[in-house]
Amino acid sequence: MKINEHFLDLKDSYLFATVGRKTAEYKRAHPDKEVIRLSIGDVTRPLAPAVIAAMHKAVDNMSRTETFKGYGPDQYCYAYDELLDTILASYARKGVTLEKGEVFVSDGAKSDCGNILDIFSVDNTVLVPDPVYPVYLDTNIMAGRKVVFADANEGNGFLPMPDERVQADIIYLCSPNNPTGAAYTCEQLKAWVDYARANNAVILYDAAYEYFVTDARCARSIYQVEGAKECAIELCSYSKTAGFTGVRCGYTIVPHALVRKGTSLNKLWARRQSTKFNGVSYITQMGAAAVFTEEGEREIAENIGYYRENAKIISDCLDSLGIWYTGGKNSPYIWLKCPNGMKSWDFFDYLLENAQVVGTPGSGFGANGEGFFRLTAFGTHENTRRACDRIRALLGK
Amino acid sequence: MKINEHFLDLKDSYLFATVGRKTAEYKRAHPDKEVIRLSIGDVTRPLAPAVIAAMHKAVDNMSRTETFKGYGPDQYCYAYDELLDTILASYARKGVTLEKGEVFVSDGAKSDCGNILDIFSVDNTVLVPDPVYPVYLDTNIMAGRKVVFADANEGNGFLPMPDERVQADIIYLCSPNNPTGAAYTCEQLKAWVDYARANNAVILYDAAYEYFVTDARCARSIYQVEGAKECAIELCSYSKTAGFTGVRCGYTIVPHALVRKGTSLNKLWARRQSTKFNGVSYITQMGAAAVFTEEGEREIAENIGYYRENAKIISDCLDSLGIWYTGGKNSPYIWLKCPNGMKSWDFFDYLLENAQVVGTPGSGFGANGEGFFRLTAFGTHENTRRACDRIRALLGK
Repeated sequence: MKINEHFLDLKDSYLFATVGRKTAEYKRAHPDKEVIRLSIGDVTRPLAPAVIAAMHKAVDNMSRTETFKGYGPDQYCYAYDELLDTILASYARKGVTLEKGEVFVSDGAKSDCGNILDIFSVDNTVLVPDPVYPVYLDTNIMAGRKVVFADANEGNGFLPMPDERVQADIIYLCSPNNPTGAAYTCEQLKAWVDYARANNAVILYDAAYEYFVTDARCARSIYQVEGAKECAIELCSYSKTAGFTGVRCGYTIVPHALVRKGTSLNKLWARRQSTKFNGVSYITQMGAAAVFTEEGEREIAENIGYYRENAKIISDCLDSLGIWYTGGKNSPYIWLKCPNGMKSWDFFDYLLENAQVVGTPGSGFGANGEGFFRLTAFGTHENTRRACDRIRALLGK
Repeated sequence: MKINEHFLDLKDSYLFATVGRKTAEYKRAHPDKEVIRLSIGDVTRPLAPAVIAAMHKAVDNMSRTETFKGYGPDQYCYAYDELLDTILASYARKGVTLEKGEVFVSDGAKSDCGNILDIFSVDNTVLVPDPVYPVYLDTNIMAGRKVVFADANEGNGFLPMPDERVQADIIYLCSPNNPTGAAYTCEQLKAWVDYARANNAVILYDAAYEYFVTDARCARSIYQVEGAKECAIELCSYSKTAGFTGVRCGYTIVPHALVRKGTSLNKLWARRQSTKFNGVSYITQMGAAAVFTEEGEREIAENIGYYRENAKIISDCLDSLGIWYTGGKNSPYIWLKCPNGMKSWDFFDYLLENAQVVGTPGSGFGANGEGFFRLTAFGTHENTRRACDRIRALLGK
C-alpha cells in the first residue's frame, strides 16, 4: 500500500498554536494582568430564537414514528425542500435567480471547499491569493496540483485583479476576505469573470462573510455579476451569517450553465455528493430553514449588528491613530499595517506585552501578510472597547 | 480547466430508481392491491428517548451566550470528550482498548468511506467484494484506482477469503455485510489480517451493522482480531445502531499502530480531517454521546430487537420453504437464492405481481448478485408477517 505522498509536502501550521502558547506563557508570567483576545475567529453570540424553536421542533419530530426522518430526500442530494426554498428566496432578494437543483446543502463551506476539488483533474493550475485562508492552498497540495499565487498587498488594497500573463484553470476568490476583510465590488469581480471566461477557468467564490457587506457596490454573490453562472461556483455558509460554526451547515451553488466540453459540473458535483456524502442532519436543516425567514433574518441581523459595532470600534480606533487597514466595514475582520514598519510577530509581542491585547500575525496567512496583523470583531463590546482604549494609549503616544 | 475524467467512467445506478418505478407502475395498474415493501434500507423506528433528551438540552445550550458552542475542540478533530469517552467505553465492552486520538468522529460512515481514500496514493490496487455496497467501487473509480474483485457466492456463503495469488493494497470488508447480511467470524477475519500484514495491505473494515451481531463467534470489531491494529481502519456508524440515518454521525478508527514506511496513517487522516472537515454538529454529538450510556444502550437494544424480530420472521419463512439464504441472524438483511433458478429481476416481477411484495434484485449489487434477492427487516412487524404469509402461500404451492 502506498500513501498519498503529496501529504508530505504540506507544511504544518503553527499559527494559532503559537498564538495560544505565547498568550498562555504571558499570562503565567503576569498573573495580575488581564489579557483581551481580539484574535477570536469564531462567533460568540447564541443562535437566533427562531432557529432554536425550529430545532426543538425537529428533535421532537425525531421522537415519534409518524414524524421520524431517516435519510434525507434523494432528489436534491438529501436537502429538504423547506430549506432549499429559503435559500432560493434569499438569493432572489439579492437579485439572483437560481433553481433548486443548483443548490447543494452540506455540513459547511470548509468541507465543500475541499471536496469540490474531486470533480477537477489533478492536471490544473490553481490560482490562490496571498495572504489566504490556508484551506485553499493545503487541499490543492494534498492533491498534487500546481499552485500559483496572486499578490494581495497594500498597493491593491489586498484585492488582487486578474493578470492576463498568468494562466490559471481554477481561481479562488474570497470576498469579504478572510483574513484581510477586503471586499470586491461587482465591477472588480466582473474583471475576474471576464478573465475566467476568456481562459476557460472556473472561479471558486467563497462568500462565507457576505452577510457582513454594507457597501451597496460590493458583491453579496458573484452571480450578481453578468456571466458568472458560466464560470463560477459559490460557497456559502451559515457559520458567520447565523452563528452556525458549531452546528455545521453550508450550501454550494453549481449553476446548470457551468458546462465544460459538454460536461455539466453540476452533474459531476451531484454524483460526488450522492456517492461520498449522505446529507446534513434533519435537525440542522430545519434550524437553517428558519434563518432566511422574516423572523430569522431580523434576529440574525441583531447578532451581525453586534459584531459590526465591534468592527466599528476597532476601525475608529485605527482611524484616530492614522493606521492603514482594510476590512472592518464589510467584514468582521480588520487587517492593519503594523506601525513603524514592525514585523507581524514583533507587533504581536509588542501588543501583548504593552497592551495585553492578542491579535493574529498576518505573516501566518502567507508571505504577503508579513508586516500586517488581524483583529476580529467577535468579542464583546466591553472587551473590544477596553482593548481599543489600551491600543490608543500605547500607539498614540 | 480540465474536469476529473474518471467521473465519466462511472456507471449510473438505476437499481433503486427502477425498483421505485416498477412498484409505482404496478400500483397504478392495480389500485386495489396493497403492496408491501421489504426493500427498505432505512431505519423506521424513532430515536431513543435518551438521545432526544440530550439533543433538547444541547439545543438549549446553543440559545444562551454562557453555554453556546462554536467550532468543536481542536484536539481530537472537533470531537467532544463526552462523546469520545462513550465510544472508548463501548469498545472496551467488546474487549478492545483504544485511545481518544485513534477515534475520529464524522457525519457518517459513508462520508468517511469516500474521504479516507484521500490519504492513499492513486497508484494502489483495490480489492472489493462482489456483490458490494456500491460506494466502495464508485469512490475508487472516481479517483482512477485499479479495482479487482473478490468473488462472494453461494459456495463461500458470500464471505470470500483471501487468495494469495491476488495482489491487493487496499481491501474492503463489510461485516455484517450489506447487501448479503453474511458476517465473518473472528477466525475468518484473522486470515484477512494475516494476508494484509503479509502483503503490506490496509483493510478498510465497514462495521456499520455490528450491533446486529448475536453470534458470539462473529466479530463486532476487527480489532478483536490480533494484529488488526497494524493493518486495519474501522468505519462505524450510529445510523443503523441508533437510528441516526437522518442525524448523521459516525466514527472511524485509525490506530496509532497503523504505520507504513515510518508514516502514521492516523496523522495523515487527522491532517485530512482538520483541513477538509470542520466537525459534527454539537447537538448531534451530544445526542450520539447518549447512545452508549446504560440508558441509551437499553433503549437502542429495544429498537434493534424490533428489527431482529422482523429478520427472524423472514428467516423462518425461508426456512419453512427450504430457500437458501445468508443473513437474518446477525444482520437486518436477508439475501436469498431466487427459487427455481430465476434471475433477480424476474423474481422481483414475480413477487410483485403474485404476492405484492417488493424486494431488491441482487444483480443490482454486482455480477455475483445475479440470481439472488435482498429482503430487509426495517418494516413493521405487521407488514413483515403479512408479506411472509403471502410469500409462503405463493412459493409453498
